[in-house]
Amino acid sequence: MTIDSSELWHVDASELDNFEQRYRARFINSLSGFKSANLIGTVSESGVRNLAIVNSVFHIGANPPLMGMITRPNTARRDTVENLQATGYYTINHVHRGIFHQAHQTSARYDAHIDEFEAVGLTPVNSASFAAPYVAEAVIRIGLKVEEVKHLDINSTDLVIGRITELSLPRELVGDDGFIDIEGAGSLAISSLDAYHQTERLDRLSYAKPDKPVKSIL
Amino acid sequence: MTIDSSELWHVDASELDNFEQRYRARFINSLSGFKSANLIGTVSESGVRNLAIVNSVFHIGANPPLMGMITRPNTARRDTVENLQATGYYTINHVHRGIFHQAHQTSARYDAHIDEFEAVGLTPVNSASFAAPYVAEAVIRIGLKVEEVKHLDINSTDLVIGRITELSLPRELVGDDGFIDIEGAGSLAISSLDAYHQTERLDRLSYAKPDKPVKSIL
Repeated sequence: MTIDSSELWHVDASELDNFEQRYRARFINSLSGFKSANLIGTVSESGVRNLAIVNSVFHIGANPPLMGMITRPNTARRDTVENLQATGYYTINHVHRGIFHQAHQTSARYDAHIDEFEAVGLTPVNSASFAAPYVAEAVIRIGLKVEEVKHLDINSTDLVIGRITELSLPRELVGDDGFIDIEGAGSLAISSLDAYHQTERLDRLSYAKPDKPVKSIL
Repeated sequence: MTIDSSELWHVDASELDNFEQRYRARFINSLSGFKSANLIGTVSESGVRNLAIVNSVFHIGANPPLMGMITRPNTARRDTVENLQATGYYTINHVHRGIFHQAHQTSARYDAHIDEFEAVGLTPVNSASFAAPYVAEAVIRIGLKVEEVKHLDINSTDLVIGRITELSLPRELVGDDGFIDIEGAGSLAISSLDAYHQTERLDRLSYAKPDKPVKSIL
């Protein structure tokens, strides 16, 4: 069913420019669609653990196994970026329904010497092979080596590219074809800056081919 | 509640390397968490419309209003990238429940001369200000100017950075604070390569401060 364009609100670039700053942040952050909810675990060179909720983790490639995330502009204090650059490692931990309040709390501006696991009430677990801590309450935990930090001049943020070196998850979530049931893990989606959503799977669809319609593979 | 690490499946880098190729693609694509479901509309210099489902659209910044997406490796044919580089514009259209079969069908390898709107049964709408077509069935439609195509040497993909120049959506979805109810628009989330999920909002949480717990702002 098509939607009559005349019934929509049309916003142009100059109108966007005139939006009040926080209104614009919520509005533009809504436009990309649903986002992943992840906690980034790092440790400073002096041993202070840091935990940060990030909604900008995304897939870059499966071979090699690469994940990306966009940082805040370098005008702000950025403990996570400093730590992962100093130590070379970080962890990505899926946020689920049972920990999203604590996860959101990590976005508060704690002083640099504060252990943010302790501050929000989550439990660190060490990796056997690198210094960055995992979240013991997380069901899906991924360890990454920093491959590259690419500065984006256009808005003074950075693209952090990490390569997966290890991960842990319940084996029963993994299907015979490699699909991981992250919904079954309770992983949440984020919209805008502060909304948390659980999900309900509609379907999995077959590999698309030009000559036949896609069908359910559930 | 912490989860006993000994009950989890631990996968290391060499085990990942040994996964069968398609198994690994589904597995690694699941790890980043929920992803946005968007249709990218472009047109070639010779006037052929292209439509491609993309699960890698993400937020880069609100001021200026920037969105990113990761392309396929440049070893494959990439009509979308060629078109947006040639014309300088593209559209992002949220995929909702009513069009996700057609949206998924756009991932089939149609010949370059095929109008993919027509092939999958979706309707193009022209912008008043640039050549790239919108999807008339989409509730949320965003028009972008290409700002930069950054090659990622690490796996031969590209990061396309676009600046929002116009957009259309139902005004009733936008809250007084700028939050857009994309769930109300029926926008879907994707997991792995082929799973589509509707969402149910758990909560919106207050701006976090070190000295007090976050609370619901619904």
